[in-house]
Amino acid sequence: MSYDVGIDLGATNIKLGLVGGRGKVLARRMLATRARKGPRQALERVADAIVELRGKRRLRSIGIGIAGLVDHVHGIVRVPPNLPGWNGTPVKAILERLTGTEVYCANDVNAVALGEWTHGAGKGTRDLFCVTLGTGVGGGIISGGRLLLGANHAAGEAGHMTVFGNGPACLCGGHGCVERYVGAAYLVDRARKRIRAQLRRLQSHRNQTALFAGMSPDGPSMIFELARGDFARITPREIGQAARKGDRLALDLVEETGYYLGLGLASAVQLIDPERIVMGGGVSRMGLPLLKAVRKTVFSRVQMFPGRRLDIVLSELGGDAGIIGASRLRQCLAVQDSRPGQTFCIR
Amino acid sequence: MSYDVGIDLGATNIKLGLVGGRGKVLARRMLATRARKGPRQALERVADAIVELRGKRRLRSIGIGIAGLVDHVHGIVRVPPNLPGWNGTPVKAILERLTGTEVYCANDVNAVALGEWTHGAGKGTRDLFCVTLGTGVGGGIISGGRLLLGANHAAGEAGHMTVFGNGPACLCGGHGCVERYVGAAYLVDRARKRIRAQLRRLQSHRNQTALFAGMSPDGPSMIFELARGDFARITPREIGQAARKGDRLALDLVEETGYYLGLGLASAVQLIDPERIVMGGGVSRMGLPLLKAVRKTVFSRVQMFPGRRLDIVLSELGGDAGIIGASRLRQCLAVQDSRPGQTFCIR
Repeated sequence: MSYDVGIDLGATNIKLGLVGGRGKVLARRMLATRARKGPRQALERVADAIVELRGKRRLRSIGIGIAGLVDHVHGIVRVPPNLPGWNGTPVKAILERLTGTEVYCANDVNAVALGEWTHGAGKGTRDLFCVTLGTGVGGGIISGGRLLLGANHAAGEAGHMTVFGNGPACLCGGHGCVERYVGAAYLVDRARKRIRAQLRRLQSHRNQTALFAGMSPDGPSMIFELARGDFARITPREIGQAARKGDRLALDLVEETGYYLGLGLASAVQLIDPERIVMGGGVSRMGLPLLKAVRKTVFSRVQMFPGRRLDIVLSELGGDAGIIGASRLRQCLAVQDSRPGQTFCIR
Repeated sequence: MSYDVGIDLGATNIKLGLVGGRGKVLARRMLATRARKGPRQALERVADAIVELRGKRRLRSIGIGIAGLVDHVHGIVRVPPNLPGWNGTPVKAILERLTGTEVYCANDVNAVALGEWTHGAGKGTRDLFCVTLGTGVGGGIISGGRLLLGANHAAGEAGHMTVFGNGPACLCGGHGCVERYVGAAYLVDRARKRIRAQLRRLQSHRNQTALFAGMSPDGPSMIFELARGDFARITPREIGQAARKGDRLALDLVEETGYYLGLGLASAVQLIDPERIVMGGGVSRMGLPLLKAVRKTVFSRVQMFPGRRLDIVLSELGGDAGIIGASRLRQCLAVQDSRPGQTFCIR
């Protein structure tokens, strides 16, 4: 049996997993990134954790997905937005020296896409689009059976596709980006604002109820109850739970999220024509109501000619997709980068 | 020396070219498609023209780009919007029987992309996005040195990416698609409307000029003059000419077109990260002012991290891109479809 270690290196935590040949996570570790203390200390602790994880087993490779722009060929991190001071870090070289094992690096969302493709909801496809819905919205593309890297290894940025050219400003410098509507923080913010408005309406209704008899206003939303009356506890998960129970406000939020996300995904379908779209990440925990809303928008905007292959599904690997996919980088990257002769057309 | 025939089969005309090994068109023919009379008569005349074209030369292959959805592997046309009655036509099989030469089929815009990639403005790249701007807006993607086909061979539909989710209805069933703003007919229509409004203002100014002394209104636009006072003669070319001469109305139109197109291209850059974008087709004849406007929008919406490779240029092959690209289908499609073992990652 062969073993690989897959690592998901985020701004806050580092998740490591020992992954078997069939994509099963056999053991795992979690470390704090301590991003501000720089890459060296983090990678040293990662190397220690790898030694622990493998025990007496022989490792075939180590794969690591990193939040930010990653040079997939040389294993160097570039412009990582949430890892200040890490720009230019030769992660592959450092970790190979520390562990004596081959290391492969990728963007974290590309690793997730590879995970879902090799062992999750994207299994069996040749053209897959995997989106991760969290604070940020990211994407990874498998096209014709290969990871689509792009000229700058920056492909898949689904979150910064424009869906409303004149929409609100996004942190990226653009306007009306998918992420600006669908990113977890924006979504939760909308939920809070609307619940506060409900509470105000209820309050003012109570004050006036002695004077006027009439319909009582809606609310407060079940989201508020699921968050135990604490605005800070509202996450996409609570919104999804409330939506599944039929809560009006939650259903509206889910519907909107599906609409905005669907606009972006429909554009992606027009451009890269995947046979399946997999949705993962925290916001995808809103679950089936979100899936339904996304499907509605996408299928109404894409030409569904007879026999068109296109499906949209939820992630199967959840939080493990990143480590499972990272553990498969050896095979996936080796195929596409080391043999340029295979991958071109005569000029 | 080796020769291939490249064919660009449109709804109105069929262009054929005998193409040498270096991508030079050595001889050409043009036929009427007579689309309504069905595929058989058209392909028979094509076969006759090929015999004429090749003379005593030995042909290596015939490549044909067809407007519509094309099964690139089996050479069958599916759902061609402007070729009624052609759905399901096995173009490859028919033309091979008629000519005795190997035939390769592709979507017409994919053929254009291959042309620009192998011998035109996209030469030397591995990640290219080629858009054609005409009545319709199409696109072809080269990714990692291969034509990106998509699961349904329907990739590259740049014209139907959404740029304003709530925009005007598009013929495709969507709303706010790039094509709805940038398609030649919509563009020319806007030009006509604005020139008519100018003429009305001028007329009413003349009527009132005896009464009021004041600034004379603008116009009529130079576009009108270049079209020799005939609204039917207004095309993107006249708009571009007027813009280059500084005509205000023309500059506004070009600026708008560049903005809408740029929104779509920026989304495409986020998703597939090309190193170069080539713009061809009739509307691209607006030339440098359009290029400038497109660049402005794209570069302001895409994260231009240090060292990012991204350029936007105009087509070099113009109307020949389709036949030159079609003549290269043999090499390009052979590489990617016949050896599935090369193009996958282990599952």
